[in-house]
Amino acid sequence: MTDLTARVRAWASEAKDAAAVLAAVDTRAKNAALGAIAGVLRERATALVAENARDVEAAEARGVSAALLDRLRLSEARVEAMAAGVEEVIALPDPVGGIDGLARRPNGLLVGRMRVPLGVIAMIYEARPNVAIEASALTLKSGNAILLKGGSEARHSNRALALVLRDALSRAGLPAGAVTLIDETDRAVVEVLVTQDDLVDVVIPRGGEGLIRAVVEKARVPVLQHYKGVCHAFVDHGADLAQAATIVVNAKAQRPGVCNALETLLVHRAEADAFLPLVAARLADRGVVLRGCPETCARVAAEPATDDDWAAEYLDLILAVRVVDDLDAAMAHIRRWGSRHTEAILTRDHANAMRFLREVDASCVVVNASTRFNDGNQLGLGAEIGISTTKLHAYGPMGLEELTTRKFVVFGEGQVRG
Amino acid sequence: MTDLTARVRAWASEAKDAAAVLAAVDTRAKNAALGAIAGVLRERATALVAENARDVEAAEARGVSAALLDRLRLSEARVEAMAAGVEEVIALPDPVGGIDGLARRPNGLLVGRMRVPLGVIAMIYEARPNVAIEASALTLKSGNAILLKGGSEARHSNRALALVLRDALSRAGLPAGAVTLIDETDRAVVEVLVTQDDLVDVVIPRGGEGLIRAVVEKARVPVLQHYKGVCHAFVDHGADLAQAATIVVNAKAQRPGVCNALETLLVHRAEADAFLPLVAARLADRGVVLRGCPETCARVAAEPATDDDWAAEYLDLILAVRVVDDLDAAMAHIRRWGSRHTEAILTRDHANAMRFLREVDASCVVVNASTRFNDGNQLGLGAEIGISTTKLHAYGPMGLEELTTRKFVVFGEGQVRG
Repeated sequence: MTDLTARVRAWASEAKDAAAVLAAVDTRAKNAALGAIAGVLRERATALVAENARDVEAAEARGVSAALLDRLRLSEARVEAMAAGVEEVIALPDPVGGIDGLARRPNGLLVGRMRVPLGVIAMIYEARPNVAIEASALTLKSGNAILLKGGSEARHSNRALALVLRDALSRAGLPAGAVTLIDETDRAVVEVLVTQDDLVDVVIPRGGEGLIRAVVEKARVPVLQHYKGVCHAFVDHGADLAQAATIVVNAKAQRPGVCNALETLLVHRAEADAFLPLVAARLADRGVVLRGCPETCARVAAEPATDDDWAAEYLDLILAVRVVDDLDAAMAHIRRWGSRHTEAILTRDHANAMRFLREVDASCVVVNASTRFNDGNQLGLGAEIGISTTKLHAYGPMGLEELTTRKFVVFGEGQVRG
Repeated sequence: MTDLTARVRAWASEAKDAAAVLAAVDTRAKNAALGAIAGVLRERATALVAENARDVEAAEARGVSAALLDRLRLSEARVEAMAAGVEEVIALPDPVGGIDGLARRPNGLLVGRMRVPLGVIAMIYEARPNVAIEASALTLKSGNAILLKGGSEARHSNRALALVLRDALSRAGLPAGAVTLIDETDRAVVEVLVTQDDLVDVVIPRGGEGLIRAVVEKARVPVLQHYKGVCHAFVDHGADLAQAATIVVNAKAQRPGVCNALETLLVHRAEADAFLPLVAARLADRGVVLRGCPETCARVAAEPATDDDWAAEYLDLILAVRVVDDLDAAMAHIRRWGSRHTEAILTRDHANAMRFLREVDASCVVVNASTRFNDGNQLGLGAEIGISTTKLHAYGPMGLEELTTRKFVVFGEGQVRG
């Protein structure tokens, strides 16, 4: 075993021991710890911003993009928002300990399924330092221990936030191992971390597709993740075109840099003449440029689209547009090019709406609303630790319940098998 | 891409296309296909036994163990049992298409979760040819396509059973790609199969620990599995000792070669004098030999146990026995040596029963009954495709519901995000 492996295993073992304690802790104790996290965050807001400024300055000196700088930067307002976010988790119901579906078997056994924490969760993320707080609040409430591996560009911020978490846990009397910062610069640490399948129960990578592919490639621990969101909206024959245009503009332009933003618009041939000029004008007002199939380019200003456009997650004010024959052609396009993230149909036809809902394979399928609603908060989970487009365990936003599993519990009176 | 990879991807692509069809097929059509499988099995029972005999003869010529020969062998009675098993799946409810928890959000969106198939399931198994039928029946009923990679020792049996499945699908008008035998002798095929994460949704390996570790090591597709079952029973202070002895004997000796059989008995110190002689005599009557801690060896005939015994899945008429101080010591032993499979407490103490249920981390936790009940049929799932001791997606026996996932469905009326 290398020194690096030994260090990672020591952290993970401490987390596993803490997880056994957290699994049995009652809701009041967990909420008290969450309250302490919010309190310590507020007490140290100025100091946190100062530590973060060291990371921001170093990033500026390296000449990173404005978008990355924005993700990295903490302000007093952002610290307050983190504290408020933790307090929202206090208000959420504790998912742990309930028993579903207790039923009596013919031999008298009473069998049910008790919701329990997953155990030790490894979170691997990039520039956004607030992930440490958001993820820790959710794992703590759901009775899990967390290992945090943040990006090196946020080193000082991550250390300062880890101290907030440790001090809050100490105030609340919970084990320090409930939250552990993997404070290690050796780039091999991620590979070591995601292969400790006797100590770590799940890995959640959040960041660019490159990071996530690297984790999936190396992991022996189960991974919950999504690579990207190539989200579609299909405007059906007979759709309410004004409503459809409003939805398309919102899905594309309200916040183009996120995974549930619209990337490709599919338009039923029968509506192409009426809908494309209407929506193109409104998209142009928002600065969106189009990449179109030949039929699109014949009707509105658009660059010709290639297969790269159908596959693209632009995360930018660009929209691919394709005219399709019918619902089947739209669903075939989505099956070929979609990323199982978020898919929408804009229609007045009930049968088509129900077919689309049933047949499109995506973590969230939407009728007559913006793709931007695929978000844990918007869908009613309260808060999310990420979105999964793998179908195992969780498909879509992951909230507190997705940080738990269910074990079988059996109440007997001496039964044996014959 | 190698030729092998191209062949595997061709099979998996056909399966993925079939999965899209199966996801939308109604229950009647799936049940008709199941009925056809049972029918073709019965029609060809004699021929199946003859094909199987070729595998059995070759295995005998290689001098394999009697246990392996028994797993490999098909008789007309076993073919009939397979057909009857398929008919039981017809009677189970179809898990696909229902929507749970439809609730209205403040903005009027109606949000719920629709149960949908996983997609393409790769089943990797060893000698037992009937796995092909059992697994195909469950995946078909749950709307999934399956890729079957059986052991080379059952080659002729597997081919004959794959033909049964293809012909039955054809009679029922379902796509042939719903069930595909990966008929490939290159040993690298497993590694290729479990890394096609764009085509395969989940891998379920069934067999020895070596096979399963090899799959987990190589897989990029999520894996549902258990390595082994090191199952414990703890006899608490004040337990009903006669009932406890009956349960321990059943758990150990009723079928010692299976994963939910008892491997280690933990006895509260206060009951050691009374319980150990009682249970040892009854176990000896069933041919069970003991490996004990020093306190056990001082009371009954037992070889001294080493750490290897606490870790052992004997799958044989051997039982490790340890005297412990109390419930906490028993749970600490289970945490250290258990495999998260099945753990039982035999007690009259309500608080201890509830603590054990809550705090022991295992796929099935049992009070006052045999560990042998951790089985899909016994727990009410109807039939199982395997048992998972990973906590992601499924923990415990996996039935039809565990072969599905839930996607979010959103019914809107024009909502956009502000």
